[in-house]
Amino acid sequence: MAASNGSTTTTNDLRATFLKVYSVLKSELLEDPSFEFTDESRQWIDRMLDYNVPGGKLNRGLSVIDSYKLLSEGKNLTENEVFLASALGWCIEWLQAYFLVLDDIMDGSHTRRGQPCWFRVDKVGMIAVNDGVVLRNHIPRILKNHFREKAYYVDLLELFNEVEFQTSSGQMIDLITTLQGEKDLSKYTLPVHRRIVQYKTAYYSFYLPVACALLMAGENLDDHTLVKDVLIEMGTYFQVQVKLFSESDCNSYC
Amino acid sequence: MAASNGSTTTTNDLRATFLKVYSVLKSELLEDPSFEFTDESRQWIDRMLDYNVPGGKLNRGLSVIDSYKLLSEGKNLTENEVFLASALGWCIEWLQAYFLVLDDIMDGSHTRRGQPCWFRVDKVGMIAVNDGVVLRNHIPRILKNHFREKAYYVDLLELFNEVEFQTSSGQMIDLITTLQGEKDLSKYTLPVHRRIVQYKTAYYSFYLPVACALLMAGENLDDHTLVKDVLIEMGTYFQVQVKLFSESDCNSYC
Repeated sequence: MAASNGSTTTTNDLRATFLKVYSVLKSELLEDPSFEFTDESRQWIDRMLDYNVPGGKLNRGLSVIDSYKLLSEGKNLTENEVFLASALGWCIEWLQAYFLVLDDIMDGSHTRRGQPCWFRVDKVGMIAVNDGVVLRNHIPRILKNHFREKAYYVDLLELFNEVEFQTSSGQMIDLITTLQGEKDLSKYTLPVHRRIVQYKTAYYSFYLPVACALLMAGENLDDHTLVKDVLIEMGTYFQVQVKLFSESDCNSYC
Repeated sequence: MAASNGSTTTTNDLRATFLKVYSVLKSELLEDPSFEFTDESRQWIDRMLDYNVPGGKLNRGLSVIDSYKLLSEGKNLTENEVFLASALGWCIEWLQAYFLVLDDIMDGSHTRRGQPCWFRVDKVGMIAVNDGVVLRNHIPRILKNHFREKAYYVDLLELFNEVEFQTSSGQMIDLITTLQGEKDLSKYTLPVHRRIVQYKTAYYSFYLPVACALLMAGENLDDHTLVKDVLIEMGTYFQVQVKLFSESDCNSYC
């Protein structure tokens, strides 16, 4: 029982530390020198971020820190290492929020994470499309603020770009196939289903957190294609399970 | 007259060359090894690109080539230089297409460049939101395909990221102010209007093409802040004029 309590405390500590980093990143974005905010627009972003970014289970983000710890082979992480791994974790949570805000519009969904979808909130409506774009744009701002001097900075930019490309491409096949499926269910073949699940979810949910940790640990991603293959398999298995056992309020991305 | 004809021919030649580069870039994107296309999704992207990317005046894209020529001080450009300047020009046209596809959805517009807005095309609808995202994702794919080995590659990635951030932030102020303006026109002050015009249009339409050319010419953008200031002023003046004399089918971005 003691071990169990200890483990729970550690998990809670990690979560609390992670949430503190969110506050720091948000403050920096609200003072970004590349844009002259009006008071109203700063308040809008503040509210939009709090509504959409930190309300999920945070598994993807937290798993960057866990993965980096494992790669560090038991060494205690410095405060700076925890901050940087958390910042990368938040970049994934921002990416997720961007996908969710836009997906809810495309699907005409009503609720997300137990509250109305952002585009259904009073006075938001289709402004949510641009808010999705703003969320996406925050990722390179965070990366520039904290990783610009790192040797792996360009690899990070490329990693996020590639994974976003794969996710939106998987989403495209899903949307087109659903459209065609209205008339002809035979379009939903097993190979098409595999591609949808793999590209739409597995890359950003399973591969991306570990790839971020590998880059932070100084690794070259080209040397770890087997890691990628295994994580994509895991992500595909996970997503098929979610679809099978999904709750009413939990659609594909959760 | 001869000079005038000659100049026209040159302009037409440049446009034809530029359009050939579009075909090359599109072919590469349709065979991107980072995604396993189905036949249907490849055809969807092909049609979506042809519908949205090359149908404008192409001024922003062509101006990368013109700017690079001026920076080369009369030297004839090599075939490769023309190709690379054109590829960067097309990245700006892709960026523009991404903004337009999403803006038309947010504004509930009906026509764009003399044809129905993409989201109003039969069987497209809200899939257009994801198509906008796919358009955006093509930019780093093009940059990776053709500029990865260049010393200025990371500067290009940062430039496109920063300008996209500024454009979507300007759009945000516009959307919020319009919402508030429904009740209270006093929100539309002159300083707010300046910020909307400057960030929503001037950066990507006037600064971005010249900044791309400067990077290709080996310049450091930090050494050319005056160039930036002048171009932003020009872009602001242009946009105010467009708004004053706009045609029914030409909204803010044209």
